[in-house]
Amino acid sequence: MKNKIINDPVHGFLSFGEPELMHMIDHPWFQRLRNISQMGVAHLVYPGAVHTRFLHSLGACHLMAKALDELQLKGFEINTQERTAARLAILLHDIGHGPFSHALENSLLEGIKHEEVSKIIIQKINKQMGGALDTALQVFASSYPKKYLHQLVSGQLDVDRLDYLSRDSFYSGVTEGVIGYDRILKMLTISNGELAVEEKGIYSIEKFIIARHIMYWQVYLHKTVLGAEMLLVNILKRAKELSQAGVHLWATPALHYFLNNNVSQESFAASDDVVSMFCEMDDTDIIVARKEWTKADDKVLATLCKMHRNRKLYKVVFDHENEAELIANKKSLLQAHTGFGQKELSYFVFAGNTSNSTYNRSNDAIKIALKDGTTRNITEMKDSLLNDKIAPMVSKSYVCYWQGWG
Amino acid sequence: MKNKIINDPVHGFLSFGEPELMHMIDHPWFQRLRNISQMGVAHLVYPGAVHTRFLHSLGACHLMAKALDELQLKGFEINTQERTAARLAILLHDIGHGPFSHALENSLLEGIKHEEVSKIIIQKINKQMGGALDTALQVFASSYPKKYLHQLVSGQLDVDRLDYLSRDSFYSGVTEGVIGYDRILKMLTISNGELAVEEKGIYSIEKFIIARHIMYWQVYLHKTVLGAEMLLVNILKRAKELSQAGVHLWATPALHYFLNNNVSQESFAASDDVVSMFCEMDDTDIIVARKEWTKADDKVLATLCKMHRNRKLYKVVFDHENEAELIANKKSLLQAHTGFGQKELSYFVFAGNTSNSTYNRSNDAIKIALKDGTTRNITEMKDSLLNDKIAPMVSKSYVCYWQGWG
Amino acid sequence: MKNKIINDPVHGFLSFGEPELMHMIDHPWFQRLRNISQMGVAHLVYPGAVHTRFLHSLGACHLMAKALDELQLKGFEINTQERTAARLAILLHDIGHGPFSHALENSLLEGIKHEEVSKIIIQKINKQMGGALDTALQVFASSYPKKYLHQLVSGQLDVDRLDYLSRDSFYSGVTEGVIGYDRILKMLTISNGELAVEEKGIYSIEKFIIARHIMYWQVYLHKTVLGAEMLLVNILKRAKELSQAGVHLWATPALHYFLNNNVSQESFAASDDVVSMFCEMDDTDIIVARKEWTKADDKVLATLCKMHRNRKLYKVVFDHENEAELIANKKSLLQAHTGFGQKELSYFVFAGNTSNSTYNRSNDAIKIALKDGTTRNITEMKDSLLNDKIAPMVSKSYVCYWQGWG
Amino acid sequence: MKNKIINDPVHGFLSFGEPELMHMIDHPWFQRLRNISQMGVAHLVYPGAVHTRFLHSLGACHLMAKALDELQLKGFEINTQERTAARLAILLHDIGHGPFSHALENSLLEGIKHEEVSKIIIQKINKQMGGALDTALQVFASSYPKKYLHQLVSGQLDVDRLDYLSRDSFYSGVTEGVIGYDRILKMLTISNGELAVEEKGIYSIEKFIIARHIMYWQVYLHKTVLGAEMLLVNILKRAKELSQAGVHLWATPALHYFLNNNVSQESFAASDDVVSMFCEMDDTDIIVARKEWTKADDKVLATLCKMHRNRKLYKVVFDHENEAELIANKKSLLQAHTGFGQKELSYFVFAGNTSNSTYNRSNDAIKIALKDGTTRNITEMKDSLLNDKIAPMVSKSYVCYWQGWG
Repeated sequence: MKNKIINDPVHGFLSFGEPELMHMIDHPWFQRLRNISQMGVAHLVYPGAVHTRFLHSLGACHLMAKALDELQLKGFEINTQERTAARLAILLHDIGHGPFSHALENSLLEGIKHEEVSKIIIQKINKQMGGALDTALQVFASSYPKKYLHQLVSGQLDVDRLDYLSRDSFYSGVTEGVIGYDRILKMLTISNGELAVEEKGIYSIEKFIIARHIMYWQVYLHKTVLGAEMLLVNILKRAKELSQAGVHLWATPALHYFLNNNVSQESFAASDDVVSMFCEMDDTDIIVARKEWTKADDKVLATLCKMHRNRKLYKVVFDHENEAELIANKKSLLQAHTGFGQKELSYFVFAGNTSNSTYNRSNDAIKIALKDGTTRNITEMKDSLLNDKIAPMVSKSYVCYWQGWG
Repeated sequence: MKNKIINDPVHGFLSFGEPELMHMIDHPWFQRLRNISQMGVAHLVYPGAVHTRFLHSLGACHLMAKALDELQLKGFEINTQERTAARLAILLHDIGHGPFSHALENSLLEGIKHEEVSKIIIQKINKQMGGALDTALQVFASSYPKKYLHQLVSGQLDVDRLDYLSRDSFYSGVTEGVIGYDRILKMLTISNGELAVEEKGIYSIEKFIIARHIMYWQVYLHKTVLGAEMLLVNILKRAKELSQAGVHLWATPALHYFLNNNVSQESFAASDDVVSMFCEMDDTDIIVARKEWTKADDKVLATLCKMHRNRKLYKVVFDHENEAELIANKKSLLQAHTGFGQKELSYFVFAGNTSNSTYNRSNDAIKIALKDGTTRNITEMKDSLLNDKIAPMVSKSYVCYWQGWG
Repeated sequence: MKNKIINDPVHGFLSFGEPELMHMIDHPWFQRLRNISQMGVAHLVYPGAVHTRFLHSLGACHLMAKALDELQLKGFEINTQERTAARLAILLHDIGHGPFSHALENSLLEGIKHEEVSKIIIQKINKQMGGALDTALQVFASSYPKKYLHQLVSGQLDVDRLDYLSRDSFYSGVTEGVIGYDRILKMLTISNGELAVEEKGIYSIEKFIIARHIMYWQVYLHKTVLGAEMLLVNILKRAKELSQAGVHLWATPALHYFLNNNVSQESFAASDDVVSMFCEMDDTDIIVARKEWTKADDKVLATLCKMHRNRKLYKVVFDHENEAELIANKKSLLQAHTGFGQKELSYFVFAGNTSNSTYNRSNDAIKIALKDGTTRNITEMKDSLLNDKIAPMVSKSYVCYWQGWG
Repeated sequence: MKNKIINDPVHGFLSFGEPELMHMIDHPWFQRLRNISQMGVAHLVYPGAVHTRFLHSLGACHLMAKALDELQLKGFEINTQERTAARLAILLHDIGHGPFSHALENSLLEGIKHEEVSKIIIQKINKQMGGALDTALQVFASSYPKKYLHQLVSGQLDVDRLDYLSRDSFYSGVTEGVIGYDRILKMLTISNGELAVEEKGIYSIEKFIIARHIMYWQVYLHKTVLGAEMLLVNILKRAKELSQAGVHLWATPALHYFLNNNVSQESFAASDDVVSMFCEMDDTDIIVARKEWTKADDKVLATLCKMHRNRKLYKVVFDHENEAELIANKKSLLQAHTGFGQKELSYFVFAGNTSNSTYNRSNDAIKIALKDGTTRNITEMKDSLLNDKIAPMVSKSYVCYWQGWG
């Protein structure tokens, strides 16, 4: 088995020499990520952004190698087993994503985060492979002694973010999100056992954090994207409601199962079959169902699906002064237009809340390693332009409403 | 209705001001191109190349505007109606593509080229729209007096090629295919009513043709891509064979229809229903079927589908000296391995022929407009490096074979 | 005279159709900008950054055309004379730069800003050309009624900045400074007669301002760049001191004149000959002198020039707690090493002050044109990350010192 | 002494860890390359192309490291001494270039190629450094046993070309010359002790050779560039003629020496002083002289210099059918215009010959390493589009003429 080289338009050539990695990439559960779009439904607004979790995972695994190379060059010892484990951990970090990535999280598997799903799936594969992923699992779960390995997988400066910001910018054409990931990698170091950045890398880090901020508002939480996402969520919610009330809906067998059953985290972890079934689903299961359901007998479901097909999406208003009034108003207009009852109307006019926590999972501050050997949080650096407007979790309330076909 | 601006990572901002264009883009049959991959199965080798016919069509429509701007700047008169018609013609030029673009041409609609399918679909839409596409259809079919408008839609230097070469290079990461489309557009002119290139643009044209040559061999006819394509073709062929023999196969309703019926060009053109059904299909119909058919009772179909899932694709040999012997040899090995009979074996070991004609549809030579007012074919220019190795249709015979799971 | 097309690696093709522009570009005083480096001595740290004021001026003139196109498309009337005037004004905005741009401002012409020098030179050319630059001069001096034309030449969002940030990033390789100038141009509008930005362009503006901030600290005020700049300043200062004390120094005739004479703004404006002489100088006059002066009899001058040749530049310390002590300390060390007296030592150890005012000339805030027709300062926008850390003038004190040849 | 990292807009970060390299880069004779433009006078046509031999040399030295890394990864042993020697050899390969690179070769040092000058200068430095460059000199002169090391310095696929094609394209904005140098580097191997390319790299090599062909005709031998080059050659020729006839011309001391003395290869190699003097000259010596000589008493010299200043360059005609007649014709027109005698006229109207030999120094064919272990010349490969139109030396005759000021 020789070195596998893959062409990546973002990073150039990706190289996978370790047999464990090549083996893992060929696993059908990993190959499934080819049909899971990285940015969910954002391609409806940014039609270039059709890239997948598959190449993102490979790209992040490539950046992990680069980061470890850099640290080794600076004298930090990382042995072959650790290197492979760290690369496996990042390769598999998104394996728990379901159809449309974040968009349908909680729609098919209620109350389970994709990180948890990833962990359960990695454990299943580990069992299949006789423990070959033991160390990778430790790195993934932050139970491995070298904490910085986990921080590279999941932290403020992890290779996951370095990859997805670069990749999402590249594919969406939103150049404001471009980061200098090569320079950031060159500036990584370890300080007191934790990942840190050399002092002269501060501007690159600022650029990185601001790029994230910009991508967040301009792309990930773009009103139209949010509206499209909620539409898909509601389609699934309605289909599940109907299914569990005994209505038969056309669907792929795997999707059928998850429509008809509420799967808890415990039952998911317990059953190999349910995990297998979950790993048969990807975006295409949803798309074909959505196409078919435009002809559904249920008027709510059919309408939602036609809205999606014809791109008559919800309108979204952020932080409205009087949400209750707005909702009442829009509902009454739509009722006149469609004759829907109150329960049905709640599929078309509703409020919600969104925050950027998804993109700020960790509370660890980015550490700057000063020339004098000490470490400081980036927000404490003189001249830093990072401040309380960027740092905290930003949360916005919104109202989604549909105005009918007009 | 205001100007629609779309972010394209390849060309930057695309602008669609004409109401006819905006209306057409929102048509469900055009939106369907969002789920038809531009490069078929090439993403199996170049995982970044997951872009779609949707953005390609928008991009080509943008380049058409640029080309017409340039010609107008040079004093050639093009009125608003012609401009809109040319943009509509190129916008819709690929609307007839079925699932996986070229890969499954002839699998679902036998003996009908996608250009014919496009024409029929445009005619149907034209009827729906009360003749709004009349001029666009004339440009598309080359019956409009200004011949160069058609040449921009379909010719040696059409905006279709300018877009797909740029786009395929961008998304696949194969930089060898990058062309200087902006410079080519600046060099376009009209000579004797036909599209031509200014003399000083000759190097850009050479680069363009050579980029096409390189993309052809390095990407479009890459052995693994060809093998994956043939695998998909054979999956459909087997499914159709089984269906028409009365075996029930799980499929989306639309795909079901085309598996069970052989549709001729005449019957396709004649029936609004069949066209509608065709326009419900995209890549996802094939993907979900392929996933489900791994569990098919038919061993041939199940094996082909598992080969695809597990990426155990055919091997491909080009221009083998003794194809018959090779085939016999490989069949006998596989028979020992699987117990398949001769008919089944022909799904796993077979010969074929491929040529680059798909990418060289027109026989018109590229014209160079000399400073003295005369026109010459590019191959007749002194210093041109274009020659008989590039110009003619290149055809290669190949053998595809599978070696079993080992 | 036909359209002049110039290849620019940053913006692509630049097009100059107006005869007035083509004529102006060929003027020897404009051609002189070919030998004036855009970023002064920054190429000592960023060796790719050897680009010149010449292409920057052409590039900015190109962006002016783009900006005016955009405004016209949005319905604002700009006639041909205004268009040409605005393009001439930006084309000539840097014509007053002397050798090494900002680095030697005040060294050859004391107490005159380059904007003033530009104005005087444009006036001289205007006289040569019989008033052809009258309107351009009005736009340059902000006395033309349409204020936004001047704001495009010199303001918070002028095309000067859009060009130099893009260009300096491109040539230096500091990707942190890349801005999306095409998107910014698309978002420009006019509100109450002043230049403004559409609301949805706010993220691009934030990116632009932060890019400027980053370029400022990472490049323009990079310690080594500052040290190299001060070295050149001191070389000229010493040469002028010696010359005016009667010492003959080898120099080009033009440089000779400015070493031997203190030219005030009044005498400069008054004399055609002095202006002509000034316009004969460029970077090369300084470089050949610096090379020759390594052999000067004066030990201070020779040492400074050798420091430059051998890249043994000053060290720079920002905001030291006890500058007086540091200076005394460094002087005494160097005295022991070289035997220099106090006066000589002040060429090698000294304090100074730097601020980013050069890059923040205007006090006008960037205006955001809201959808409801009102205008707001960008800093007043909700979600804006611009704040008092970026907005105000930043000033830093520094100590420069040389440690001898060691 | 720690690792030196330099930002290169073309290759990203360049890293120089070896003390020998860092020491060599700081040498004043190497630093002198900062003032020698890579593309001579081509910036008159492509104003972005102001890059220097300095960064080209660093870039080539970076690519050498990459190439050697790749070969080591493939199992070829290269020890530290060889690595450093190869990097030094390529770092210094252009140190013999005089002002304006190729343009003035033969003008200041008659009949000595820059490669010879480089060798002599390296030998001088080697003496200064006590033999530290012994191995580097062997690699440079192809007397070191591992022939492929020399081939990487100077051959059909040397890192010199990989760098200058990439760099010249980048800075000139001529995208047709962009090559995929990273892919080419990945495909390098060694076959029978010689540099070769893996079979699957054939398309990248074709692209590389065609890019060279295109750059040759579109940039390096662009008519206006050739005319500007010949103008500079004639300025120097006239200045030398006058100087040696006893006329005093203002010039920098170093240029003065070379105007007044004909230096043979032997005398150059023999004298440390002459080499030192040569190494004091760069582009700026020529530019300041050219500026001053516009006021020369000699009308020929003054006219040539004013032509250069005012960009009234020679016109160039390639391969004219009747050159003698054309020359006679143009001379008689110019004589009427200027009153010049026959000898003077030959500075303004003359014939010449140019060939691309400069860019095709080696006769070694590029070797393709086949999968079966054998090696073949690239021109013998099936499907290769390289042919006798590209392979041979192309030579063109030309006539240069000036038409007077009109």
